[in-house]
Amino acid sequence: MPDLRKDPIIGRWVIIATERAKRPDQFSGQSQENHVEKPCPFCEGNESSTPPEIYALRPKHTQPNGPGWDLRVVPSISPFLRIEGELDRRGDGLYDVMNGIGAHEIIIETNQHIANMADLSEEQVVNVINCYIDRITDLEKDKRFKYVLVFKNHGWVAGGGRVKHSRSQLIATPVNPKRVKEELIGARQYYEYHERCVFCDLIKQELASKDRLILDIDGFIAIAPFASRFPFEVWIMPKKHSSDFVNLDMQSRFNLGKIIKKVLMKLKKGLNDPPYNYILHTAPFRRQKLGYWKSIENDYHWHIEIMPRLTRVAGFEWGTGFYICPLPPEDAAKFLREVEV
Amino acid sequence: MPDLRKDPIIGRWVIIATERAKRPDQFSGQSQENHVEKPCPFCEGNESSTPPEIYALRPKHTQPNGPGWDLRVVPSISPFLRIEGELDRRGDGLYDVMNGIGAHEIIIETNQHIANMADLSEEQVVNVINCYIDRITDLEKDKRFKYVLVFKNHGWVAGGGRVKHSRSQLIATPVNPKRVKEELIGARQYYEYHERCVFCDLIKQELASKDRLILDIDGFIAIAPFASRFPFEVWIMPKKHSSDFVNLDMQSRFNLGKIIKKVLMKLKKGLNDPPYNYILHTAPFRRQKLGYWKSIENDYHWHIEIMPRLTRVAGFEWGTGFYICPLPPEDAAKFLREVEV
Repeated sequence: MPDLRKDPIIGRWVIIATERAKRPDQFSGQSQENHVEKPCPFCEGNESSTPPEIYALRPKHTQPNGPGWDLRVVPSISPFLRIEGELDRRGDGLYDVMNGIGAHEIIIETNQHIANMADLSEEQVVNVINCYIDRITDLEKDKRFKYVLVFKNHGWVAGGGRVKHSRSQLIATPVNPKRVKEELIGARQYYEYHERCVFCDLIKQELASKDRLILDIDGFIAIAPFASRFPFEVWIMPKKHSSDFVNLDMQSRFNLGKIIKKVLMKLKKGLNDPPYNYILHTAPFRRQKLGYWKSIENDYHWHIEIMPRLTRVAGFEWGTGFYICPLPPEDAAKFLREVEV
Repeated sequence: MPDLRKDPIIGRWVIIATERAKRPDQFSGQSQENHVEKPCPFCEGNESSTPPEIYALRPKHTQPNGPGWDLRVVPSISPFLRIEGELDRRGDGLYDVMNGIGAHEIIIETNQHIANMADLSEEQVVNVINCYIDRITDLEKDKRFKYVLVFKNHGWVAGGGRVKHSRSQLIATPVNPKRVKEELIGARQYYEYHERCVFCDLIKQELASKDRLILDIDGFIAIAPFASRFPFEVWIMPKKHSSDFVNLDMQSRFNLGKIIKKVLMKLKKGLNDPPYNYILHTAPFRRQKLGYWKSIENDYHWHIEIMPRLTRVAGFEWGTGFYICPLPPEDAAKFLREVEV
C-alpha cells in the first residue's frame, strides 16, 4: 500500500509509491529514454495485455475486453494510489500519514497506434472529453475522493511511458491538491473584492488586447498566459463562466474538442512534436454545498493548461517556486497564431 | 530588461527572461543534451572568458581577473535578472508586473576542471561556504533585494550547462520567493502552537528513530526527509537551532563542508554520478526586526535540500502540487548509509 505523507513544514503531500518501487540500486546512472517498444498493450486486439476495462466506448454487439472498441479505460498496472482500503489518517510523531487510497485510470484514446492526441480526429477528441466527464461523475460517487485530476504526459521528457499510444490518465485523490486549493483561494479572494470571476476578467482582457490570444472559436479561447511558466504554455478556457467541467453541454463538448485538436496540431507542427503535459483544472467535489466553498460556482472557472516541456526545471525553480520562461508569451502566441493547421 | 510577472490567480511570480530569449523557432524539436565542450571559461588561465570578477579568493600578489585564484565569483553572462535599474512595480489591467531586477552570480568553486563538487577537497568546499556567506552579506546591503537563493545545478537533466566545471549560483530577488514564504509560514504556525521550532522537533525525531538518518557528525545531520519528493532526496541541517545561514561560526563552516562533501560523495559513488540540484534555504533579509517576521529567529531553521534528478516530473505533479516518490526514504537512507566514502 502506498503512503500519503505530509511534509510537516509546508503541508505538501507526497505519494510514497511503494507499488512501483524500485530497489535503490536500480536508480543508479543517468535516467535515459529507452526506445525499445514491445507489442503495444493499448492497440486493438491486445486487450488481454491490460487489466479488465472500467469503461469503454464500443458498439453493443462487441464484448467487454474484446476488440471492436473506440476508447477504453483501464486501471493503471502500476497505480500511484490504490483503490481498495480505508484512508486511516494517523500520526507518526511529528508527521502525518494516510494510506495511499485513490483511483488511477488510463484512458486509451484510440484503438489505433497513434502517438499524439493531435492526430486523433475531432470526433475521437470529443469521445475523450465525454469519457473524462463520465469517469469524473462516476468517481464522485466514492465518498473517499475529493478531487479527480485528468492529465496527459506526451513524450519521454514529459513523463510519458515507453509505449507510444495516445492516452490520458486520471487520478482521484482523497485530499484536495495544493495547486487546486491555491487557485480556489486566489479566485475566492478576487471574487470577494471585485464580485467578479478572475478568469472571466482575464479572458476579457486577453480578448481586448489580443497580444496573447492564439485562438478564439465557438465559445472557447486559447491564450499564452501572461505569467507563462514554460515557453509555449497554452491555456484553453470556456468564455462563458463555468466552475465545473462536467457541466459541459453536448455542443460545447464538440467545440472544446475542436479547439484542443487545433492547439495540439499547432504545437506539433510548429515545434516538431514537442513533449508536453496537459492538466484539467475543474472545481473539486462539493457533496455538501455549504461551508467554505459554497460560492465556488461564482468564483472558480475550469480550464486546461498545456505545458510543452522544452526547458529544464532547475535549482532556482525548486528553491523559490518562481519559474523562468525564456520566451515572452506574446512571442509564443504570435508564433502559434501563425502556424497553419 | 526581463519582466517579473505575477500570475493573477495564485500570485506565482514568473521571470520572463527576455535577456536569454530565443526566437520561437529555436525551441522546436526535442530538447537534447549537447556534449560539445568548448575551452572551459571557468578554468584558470581563461579569466578573460568571463565578465570581471565580483569576488575572488586569491593570494595578495595575484591580480584580479588574472590566474592564481582558488575561487571566483562572476556575474552570469545570461542573467535571469538584471542588477541595474529600479523595480517600477506597475499594473497592466488585471496583471502585476515589475522590472526583473536582481543579481545573478556564478560561484566558480575551483580553478581546476572538476565537474562534481563531490570531488573538491574539504577545504575547497569550506571556501565555497565562506563565499556564500560573504556574498549574501554583501547583497543584503542592496535595499532592493529581499532574498538570496544559493543553488546548484549538476548535470544536464538538473539544468546544468554545457560546460562541466563545478559551480554554484546565487540569485538575489526583489520579492520573497513563494517556496520560502510557505516554509516561513508553516514554521511560524508550528511555533505559535508548540512554542518550538518544527525543524528542531523533526531533527529530534529523526535522531531517535534513525530510520531516515544518513549521517550525524559534528553538529550536523543528513536525513532522507519523511515526505521526500525525489528518490534519494537529502536534507542537511544544523542540529543547533539557527535561522540564518550567515551566522555560522568558523568551526561550524568546517563541519558543514565535511558533511556536504560526504553526502555528495555517497550520491556520486552509490548512484553513478546522478544529476542533482541543491538549494540553500535561509531566513530572508530582515532589515527592520519588526512586523510579521519579528520572531523568525525562533521559528525558522536554515537547511540545505539536495535533490537527485532520477525521476521525471509529469502532469500529475504539475496539476496537483503532489509529488510521487517511487522509493521510500527509509530505503534511500539505508542505501546511502551503507555507501562507503
